[in-house]
Amino acid sequence: MIDAGQLTDFGAEVLTSLDVPADDAHLVADSLVTADLCGHPSHGMLRLPWYVARLRSGVMQPITAPELVVDIGALAVMDAHQGVGQVVTDRACTEAVARAEEHGVGVVAVRNSNHFGTAAYWTRRMAQAGCVGILTTNGSPAMAPWGGTRKTVGANPWSVAAPAGTRDPVVLDIANTGVARGKIYAAAQRGEPIPDTWAIDENGVPTTDPKVAVHGLLAPMGGHKGYGISFIMDVLSGVLTGSGYAEQVVGPYVPDQQSNCGHLVLALRVDAFLPAEQFAVRMEDLIQTTKSVPLADGTREIFYPGEIEARAERAGRLRGVDLPAQTLSDLRELGDSCGLSFDELTGHTGTAVG
Amino acid sequence: MIDAGQLTDFGAEVLTSLDVPADDAHLVADSLVTADLCGHPSHGMLRLPWYVARLRSGVMQPITAPELVVDIGALAVMDAHQGVGQVVTDRACTEAVARAEEHGVGVVAVRNSNHFGTAAYWTRRMAQAGCVGILTTNGSPAMAPWGGTRKTVGANPWSVAAPAGTRDPVVLDIANTGVARGKIYAAAQRGEPIPDTWAIDENGVPTTDPKVAVHGLLAPMGGHKGYGISFIMDVLSGVLTGSGYAEQVVGPYVPDQQSNCGHLVLALRVDAFLPAEQFAVRMEDLIQTTKSVPLADGTREIFYPGEIEARAERAGRLRGVDLPAQTLSDLRELGDSCGLSFDELTGHTGTAVG
Repeated sequence: MIDAGQLTDFGAEVLTSLDVPADDAHLVADSLVTADLCGHPSHGMLRLPWYVARLRSGVMQPITAPELVVDIGALAVMDAHQGVGQVVTDRACTEAVARAEEHGVGVVAVRNSNHFGTAAYWTRRMAQAGCVGILTTNGSPAMAPWGGTRKTVGANPWSVAAPAGTRDPVVLDIANTGVARGKIYAAAQRGEPIPDTWAIDENGVPTTDPKVAVHGLLAPMGGHKGYGISFIMDVLSGVLTGSGYAEQVVGPYVPDQQSNCGHLVLALRVDAFLPAEQFAVRMEDLIQTTKSVPLADGTREIFYPGEIEARAERAGRLRGVDLPAQTLSDLRELGDSCGLSFDELTGHTGTAVG
Repeated sequence: MIDAGQLTDFGAEVLTSLDVPADDAHLVADSLVTADLCGHPSHGMLRLPWYVARLRSGVMQPITAPELVVDIGALAVMDAHQGVGQVVTDRACTEAVARAEEHGVGVVAVRNSNHFGTAAYWTRRMAQAGCVGILTTNGSPAMAPWGGTRKTVGANPWSVAAPAGTRDPVVLDIANTGVARGKIYAAAQRGEPIPDTWAIDENGVPTTDPKVAVHGLLAPMGGHKGYGISFIMDVLSGVLTGSGYAEQVVGPYVPDQQSNCGHLVLALRVDAFLPAEQFAVRMEDLIQTTKSVPLADGTREIFYPGEIEARAERAGRLRGVDLPAQTLSDLRELGDSCGLSFDELTGHTGTAVG
């Protein structure tokens, strides 16, 4: 177990050593560690070495200097100029929330960005600021269009979050594949097989080998519906924003090519629609109604979207983060390459846990 | 085969006989006939008798008089006061597009509405007006929350559409169930069994009997993901708008209870983000890329979202509408009850085709 705060500090130190400003570095590290805490290691510190490789190659800029190329009150278009995805998205969400403060709704379209971690991290912050937050992104091709055999459609995650009174915010975060590609990487790191519904190999045959699946095609969530959703998320995130789309988008695990990904941020200020207290009461009532439904066999509790993650994060901040052995080893090596000792900075014993 | 124009006129005459103004009546009928033409009879003229029953009972108002209870530039909240769902949604979309004309984005939240037909009908109109159109709604409970055994979650359809240059607009329209409940009604009308993945009976056992499924639970699209999406669509459509949510929402097939459903409309004016011509070129390129992917065995063509429906509608407007025998019989009876002859008004021979 590693203390979440120390792990975050380690990540921030690594990024600072590569000329990322301290606050930005801390934000990126926090977004990754939070994903680990929430039970999504596929989007956690596993990814820090990828980011570092992209900073070193120069395709991602350590100093994020986004530019508003359209700025018309409720709406803005931001050119991220290849900045760090998390920093870009922080600026975009802050802009959207500020515009919603004045107009009830704020929209920020982002082009030329980079991978921003989990979408939920950002929409949850908008929810904590009193908004319904909506965030879409595109990603590198992961699926064939329905009926095709070549990847042109990304997993294109999208998230919607809303404040929920005294409850943790409702947070939906969906990749339009049956599973996120990161889960296949995580399985490959653990050396475990995957269910045969997650991916097909290059010839269209289902596979349980994550190493084969990485080079194959992911299946869309819900068949043709997931294809349709992912297609439209590319329209919103890539085509509309003026960023790359379809095969133009490059994944964060590629060290030396610009990402070309884009995002669309929408913030809807709750109290523009109805009094915030009334919204809170209604959300708590919806959640109560949902959680009171009689349980199916084998179910111990009904959860609302985001509840499991919020609970896991709270526990993990007390108990520590449990990283897979491969990730620990990768982070130790990464620290060494930056002149930083992972074990010293995190207080880790050096024994692989996972 | 029935001429689409004549079928629309019949529907309009029926509604006019119940005091719906002529333009509104025509709009409702067109929305239903368009669904039939697009290959979605579950949302077509099959539903006209339901609407009539609701007008007759007084729970739906023939004269739609929506009121803007919030009006702050880019954003408005509309109380539909139990008006006709299609007429309400037409007004809301028109408002959203007009606000987007000035602010780049327009948001209209609708409370106390009624069933509006297919969501795609409305987002496509926003796309034709130069906007990315987004529309969500909630509906009566159709699914249990994930792990539960009682219905609290609607199918809660949502749609996103975008103009696509010289192509028909891209139109996504998703119900968050594995299938729309209307498809089960349509199967019941045809007397055909349903796949065992569509629904479970009241005891949680999969069923192939559509008559049993109508009283059972629909399964969510993509398992827990579909549950999460549908939950959040209820937050957007019901909780945020100040309308009903969860078990408060009543389906359009119930003749004598207020619907309490709500909708959220967002319009994003394309040329606020980038020049419309550039957007058109990019959309055409995305579609071309998608349709050029090598085909899987058994596939003859790759379609983009909305393409199949647009093609079917065009053909149907020339060729006529093919309604199931039960729907024909129901419409004939409905006409009789309004003092209108279905066969005379539609030029139908009286022979059931289906």
